[in-house]
Amino acid sequence: MRIFTFDTTLRDGTQGEAVSFSVDDKIMIATKLDEIGIDYIEGGWPGSNPKDKEFFARAKELKFQHARLCAFGATRFAKHSVDKDPSVLALVGAETPAVSIFGKTWDLHVHRALGISLEQNLELISDTVKFLKDHGREVIYDAEHFFDGYKANPDYALKTLEAAKAAGADVLCLCDTNGGNLPNQLAEVVALVRQRFDGILGIHTHNDSDVAVANTLVAVEAGCTHVQGCMNGYGERCGNANMVSVLANLELKLGHSTIGPEKLQSLTQLAHFIADLANLPLRNDQAYVGHSAFAHKGGVHVAAVLKDSHTYEHVEPARVGNHQRVLLSDLSGRGNIFYKLKEKGLADRLSEEARRELLERIKHMEYLGYELESAEGTFELLVREALHPNAKFFEVINFEVATKMTGSRPSMTTATVNLKAQDGVHSATANGHGPVNALDLCLRQCLSSLYPGIAGVRLTDYKVRVLDSKKGTAAKVRVHVEWSDAKRSWATVGVSENVIEASWYALLDAIKLELMRITEQDETIEKALSDYSWGV
Amino acid sequence: MRIFTFDTTLRDGTQGEAVSFSVDDKIMIATKLDEIGIDYIEGGWPGSNPKDKEFFARAKELKFQHARLCAFGATRFAKHSVDKDPSVLALVGAETPAVSIFGKTWDLHVHRALGISLEQNLELISDTVKFLKDHGREVIYDAEHFFDGYKANPDYALKTLEAAKAAGADVLCLCDTNGGNLPNQLAEVVALVRQRFDGILGIHTHNDSDVAVANTLVAVEAGCTHVQGCMNGYGERCGNANMVSVLANLELKLGHSTIGPEKLQSLTQLAHFIADLANLPLRNDQAYVGHSAFAHKGGVHVAAVLKDSHTYEHVEPARVGNHQRVLLSDLSGRGNIFYKLKEKGLADRLSEEARRELLERIKHMEYLGYELESAEGTFELLVREALHPNAKFFEVINFEVATKMTGSRPSMTTATVNLKAQDGVHSATANGHGPVNALDLCLRQCLSSLYPGIAGVRLTDYKVRVLDSKKGTAAKVRVHVEWSDAKRSWATVGVSENVIEASWYALLDAIKLELMRITEQDETIEKALSDYSWGV
Repeated sequence: MRIFTFDTTLRDGTQGEAVSFSVDDKIMIATKLDEIGIDYIEGGWPGSNPKDKEFFARAKELKFQHARLCAFGATRFAKHSVDKDPSVLALVGAETPAVSIFGKTWDLHVHRALGISLEQNLELISDTVKFLKDHGREVIYDAEHFFDGYKANPDYALKTLEAAKAAGADVLCLCDTNGGNLPNQLAEVVALVRQRFDGILGIHTHNDSDVAVANTLVAVEAGCTHVQGCMNGYGERCGNANMVSVLANLELKLGHSTIGPEKLQSLTQLAHFIADLANLPLRNDQAYVGHSAFAHKGGVHVAAVLKDSHTYEHVEPARVGNHQRVLLSDLSGRGNIFYKLKEKGLADRLSEEARRELLERIKHMEYLGYELESAEGTFELLVREALHPNAKFFEVINFEVATKMTGSRPSMTTATVNLKAQDGVHSATANGHGPVNALDLCLRQCLSSLYPGIAGVRLTDYKVRVLDSKKGTAAKVRVHVEWSDAKRSWATVGVSENVIEASWYALLDAIKLELMRITEQDETIEKALSDYSWGV
Repeated sequence: MRIFTFDTTLRDGTQGEAVSFSVDDKIMIATKLDEIGIDYIEGGWPGSNPKDKEFFARAKELKFQHARLCAFGATRFAKHSVDKDPSVLALVGAETPAVSIFGKTWDLHVHRALGISLEQNLELISDTVKFLKDHGREVIYDAEHFFDGYKANPDYALKTLEAAKAAGADVLCLCDTNGGNLPNQLAEVVALVRQRFDGILGIHTHNDSDVAVANTLVAVEAGCTHVQGCMNGYGERCGNANMVSVLANLELKLGHSTIGPEKLQSLTQLAHFIADLANLPLRNDQAYVGHSAFAHKGGVHVAAVLKDSHTYEHVEPARVGNHQRVLLSDLSGRGNIFYKLKEKGLADRLSEEARRELLERIKHMEYLGYELESAEGTFELLVREALHPNAKFFEVINFEVATKMTGSRPSMTTATVNLKAQDGVHSATANGHGPVNALDLCLRQCLSSLYPGIAGVRLTDYKVRVLDSKKGTAAKVRVHVEWSDAKRSWATVGVSENVIEASWYALLDAIKLELMRITEQDETIEKALSDYSWGV
């Protein structure tokens, strides 16, 4: 069945604590939502803040291929007639083809929040819907707190819907505004409403009980054909129903038609795009589109996925634009490593013994606190070392790095490194922005005459975590460093009780890896490892 | 109804990509899970890796008040008889009162993953359950992929349950291993199984379709009385059913009895404790226990909540140990801080001018990259400095810290600090585990003769982030340090291009704050700030 999609990332989504979009962001997101085939894009509450006002002004220039832009507002204030109500007039002034307005369903709210009679509230609903219809708008009527209101006073809750319907509302959308309802109870109420009203029923849920997506799906099964939600589940408090999961489930699990199977393949990309604009990390474990959504860690799972990926994957990752990954960890059997090597065509190049040794080495490193699944550079180095056990580029004699600071003047950091390479001892001293930078400069100075190609890599991120916080400053720390060159990004990792020593190990791995890549020109590895999509 | 809770954070939870616990962590988590009243604690897969082996060895010393410890494993290998199967023997060797074993339900898996006949698989199940029962264990039989298996071959799926039941399994747990099933379809199958089998039925779901919690709840409504899940929804791929949400929903929404209403009030604390040990941030928008779960941002919501908090809260936050927050939308973190100052009655103690200066200072620090909402120590210091502008304890003349390493011997870190205090210049040199530790020791040495009380504080966590990764090693880093004494925990923050300098600022703030607290004894601030519940 055709289910209409109504995205409110730009309105309800921005009520999430951490979510904030600039007007430019909003324009870009609206454009993307249109491209992927969303039916309605709720852009904001015109007049409520300068950002939304500017958005609707600029949005008039947008030419959507498919979507209808929607402005959000409320039923008129009790003290104004509808044609004098500033909020309703702002809604009309947004000049959008569709408008959504919320009205009160719950008698508690009518009395406590609005302070008016139940009868007056019906007039507010009726007047506002009629006014907007008279101005040629498609009207989505959001019955706020519908399910709580229905529980408290079912007759009155239905009366509010009747008022909206009689005034011409095109969609009656049932809202679980507080997110407190559970699927079975909610579906029962939807079914009752469905029996009573024809036309399009909508569903709008929040995730306060951690069941917003399920509530949306069971509401569709009970007769709703219009679904509201936010990309990545953004929204007030615990967020709205995650539109990403709703789309994938409706298309792939329930056989309904929303944006269609072809556009569904852009879902992962869209989710990341919106997270980037929100400046929020996309949750790795987000259903369908997260980086871990099709990542296998347990040895048993990996072994089975190798034989048949259906064994531990509920859908084909490509259908939502995601892909399968296999992780390494102390839970891994040999299957995981074998998979990675095999996938890249390297498995046959390692002897059974070299493979076992590699696995033992990885297990030991993880025991020490290394985390290789997010440090593909260190893993690549391990593989290359296993393939070329005789490749040794240099041996560190010693290093020293010191930071000095006098009064409030900026600090000075100086490092010295001595190392033995093929052609003798090399020494270097350098000042840096910080200790890692200074040591990095020294290593490159020492090695640049022998390996001129080593300059093109830069540090892009640096993270430190304490592994066992109970031990205070004697605890181990893990340093995770990200690097990139013109072509790709990778990370290396170091563990020690001393943050400088841990950084040093991560740095050494990065330098050794560069040397391996420069000198070996081992095209099989090159090809195999260059498109490695790990955690960066 | 009494619903039994089975927590698998320590087993399935650790199959989540980013989740890793040390053996110490596992012991502490198991102890906490027992305290809150969980019925079964699945601790790991004995023999599969060194960490789980050590855990079960050490767990023999644990005395649980309530919970039963459970070891996890699989049905025997086809090639071994059950009394010779290493994995089954390891399970018995764990000496836990309960064991959980998974067996194959889905014919695809029997053929593709195990490569045996359907009949043989029934023998595997039967032999293994019987062997474990003969060894006096309570046996939870996990029917892996039950729902997918039932869809493919319902008769065979039921036969596997019959085999487990006939061999004496105490619980038949139906697993949605791939997380692909939706609530209505899953509940239907549970109801069919319920009709066919008496005794305890369990439910184990994964979140790949973003409906794991809902699936668990509808399964309970269809007859399951044993629920499996992981704290904070950790677990393979998209995670397991979030036990936190399951507990709250069963207790508060469906009227069932799990850990009871009193212990439920520790839920928020427990969720944070486990996130801390996992070294993962607890999601702000996590249902019930997240920092934003009862945070109101929208103007309409805030206005209504001030009149009656039921209007926009599905449960009372205190029932799960959380609390209401009101966010000042359109105001930044600094507005939030000012609101908090006011809320705590401190705003009136600052003159209009001091308040404006404090705001300017905070604004400038946030501009530099400081994040004060999660660094309450630095914030407290700013407030104390504003209240006591003449309190100056010392002035740093200079410091130096150097790390040296020769060959593969452990590194050595030495720091020197010179500072001017009331009674003249103090100097100290100290070796430390790392630069922060060495500098900390020096500062304390310099100040201990003047302020003997400054010894009781220790560093408990240390985190570094690059603020603008596009600038490479010249980017600013933010260092966030957590401290605690016998009574409480707090954090300080420092920002600089140099990680050592940023750490130094965070360290100085911590030392200054200690001196303020020791010397001022300002009880109003003490009281106001001591129960500050920020993000730590």
